[in-house]
Amino acid sequence: MRHTIQVLVENKFGVLSRVSGLFSGRGYNIESISVGPTLDNQISQMTIVTSGDDQIIEQINKQLNKLIDVIKVTDFTEFEHVEREMALIKVSPKSEHRAEALRIVDIFRAVIVDSSPKTYTIQVTGDGKKIQAIVDLLKPLGIKEIVRTGKVAISREGKTAG
Amino acid sequence: MRHTIQVLVENKFGVLSRVSGLFSGRGYNIESISVGPTLDNQISQMTIVTSGDDQIIEQINKQLNKLIDVIKVTDFTEFEHVEREMALIKVSPKSEHRAEALRIVDIFRAVIVDSSPKTYTIQVTGDGKKIQAIVDLLKPLGIKEIVRTGKVAISREGKTAG
Repeated sequence: MRHTIQVLVENKFGVLSRVSGLFSGRGYNIESISVGPTLDNQISQMTIVTSGDDQIIEQINKQLNKLIDVIKVTDFTEFEHVEREMALIKVSPKSEHRAEALRIVDIFRAVIVDSSPKTYTIQVTGDGKKIQAIVDLLKPLGIKEIVRTGKVAISREGKTAG
Repeated sequence: MRHTIQVLVENKFGVLSRVSGLFSGRGYNIESISVGPTLDNQISQMTIVTSGDDQIIEQINKQLNKLIDVIKVTDFTEFEHVEREMALIKVSPKSEHRAEALRIVDIFRAVIVDSSPKTYTIQVTGDGKKIQAIVDLLKPLGIKEIVRTGKVAISREGKTAG
């Protein structure tokens, strides 16, 4: 099963290497990772998407908590959360397909962040399924390049408050 | 100077650990990192933001190219590119500040991805400066939590085509 785990870490030198080393050293897979700052510049936040059975996930949690740079580990699978990622997709549609490309942009509430006579660069945000859906629609029009951030997640208040 | 470096790597076990180990082992700083899939599921793409003088950046490029899992290293500093990141910001404004929070959301073309009687979760995309600007404006209203993806970048065609 796929798990999205957030790890708050001290913003210290080599901490990414220690965390990723923990995963690779024990044979745990990292599907995607995002590392960014928090409001406190002493603390960074990592969002790691990994997969494994309950026992493996429990081990990952335990081992992460043992690292001295790790402040807090949250497995989002346990509660309601919002999960999002962003992709930049550069397409080079033939002239007869440019209108179709723009329609797809509209449908997905994506935005064009760069355009040239031969290309559009499209920015889209959403969960993994939405990103995959727009990629699948744009593919026949000619995708030149794609970059995706890792996932980030935040707990949902709307449902838990009810 | 800050550099945004994209690394295409074979999607092999432990590759993140090898890349981050290269940085930490040599004392190079990683400011942010995003790792995501590409169209080819054998290949992953990392966007690393690092800083250092020309000599250090040259060393980083050389060392990365020596790793067998590394397919291609691109330093975006050398040419026109679009740089973007995404943040999810959970605010808990007092009732008299909720309208102001929504105005800020509008101004930054952000979107609300979750709301509860006491909180809004705001999704915003842009370059680092834009994210910092909205964070600075929302801070006095009460930020409860923030998660940011690392930066991603893609080469700009608009200007180079001219």
